[in-house]
Amino acid sequence: MSIQRLHSNPRLSGAVTFADLVFLSGQVPGASTDIAGQTREVLEKIDALLAEAGSDKHHLLSATLYLKDIQADFGAMNEVWAAWLPAGQAPARTTLQAALARPQILVEISVIAARRASALNPNGE
Amino acid sequence: MSIQRLHSNPRLSGAVTFADLVFLSGQVPGASTDIAGQTREVLEKIDALLAEAGSDKHHLLSATLYLKDIQADFGAMNEVWAAWLPAGQAPARTTLQAALARPQILVEISVIAARRASALNPNGE
Amino acid sequence: MSIQRLHSNPRLSGAVTFADLVFLSGQVPGASTDIAGQTREVLEKIDALLAEAGSDKHHLLSATLYLKDIQADFGAMNEVWAAWLPAGQAPARTTLQAALARPQILVEISVIAARRASALNPNGE
Repeated sequence: MSIQRLHSNPRLSGAVTFADLVFLSGQVPGASTDIAGQTREVLEKIDALLAEAGSDKHHLLSATLYLKDIQADFGAMNEVWAAWLPAGQAPARTTLQAALARPQILVEISVIAARRASALNPNGE
Repeated sequence: MSIQRLHSNPRLSGAVTFADLVFLSGQVPGASTDIAGQTREVLEKIDALLAEAGSDKHHLLSATLYLKDIQADFGAMNEVWAAWLPAGQAPARTTLQAALARPQILVEISVIAARRASALNPNGE
Repeated sequence: MSIQRLHSNPRLSGAVTFADLVFLSGQVPGASTDIAGQTREVLEKIDALLAEAGSDKHHLLSATLYLKDIQADFGAMNEVWAAWLPAGQAPARTTLQAALARPQILVEISVIAARRASALNPNGE
């Protein structure tokens, strides 16, 4: 079984697939400055990387959510997060407070997902 | 291979199984206020979720332990943790300090485990 | 599929293998006191554990990097980290700030890797 690396640079790959598993690097927001906007941007990046890796948000296994200020931002992050998740498809999750690479980052999310069966057998074999 | 989700709510699933792997959400304590009691409660929750998912503490692969105050609570947490683990069956482990979802939470633990062979082939096939 | 545990003590195993996956405990430095030296020591420990587990740094799937002071040490850690990684082989990565088990620890790294095909089939079968 081979390893595939997507969006690699010398430090990290945005996504790594191995067999039927997908590991994503922790995704950080773009230009948004509030927690709801930052969470939306992070989830859009996750959607895009999962799609490239042959997976999607229906196939999340595990997620780790990092908040710069968990007391201030837990509620607003959760609202965006729960609205994004398909009904009945939530991953195992751990949420903790942590300072992240740049002070303006309020939220970072990393996930492990399963690849879709069709991604594993593109010819339906 | 299908994904099974146990104890799901709109934000997370308590446990997610995929093939022979089990991912648990970070487990937090109930009513206990000291680190030993909180660690025991967390481990009881992990036992229960692993059992439902077709695994147990003999099949732990990886654990991440979060302590609110690592200097104060590392020793007492470790005592309960080591007493709970079966001899020779410790998982890979990382322990770090982190503020968690509610200020009264002193410890949170997330694990990845393997499913028992019997859970994968319930009819012995 | 059986679980193999390497360098086990009552609290943790240095490495745990299951099927084609390897989970390493968070590795911490030895005697070095600066971030570059500590990062090098951590990566040497990871090299050694992966070798014992039938893997190597070409097979990293996911890495979580913990820094005691992410603002001060991110750059110097990254330089050592990128120099260590084989070209085009970076894992998915998340880096966060966290206080660790002992105050002198500036960096801790945990990884998930794939085992080499030859490790899975030592007789080439």
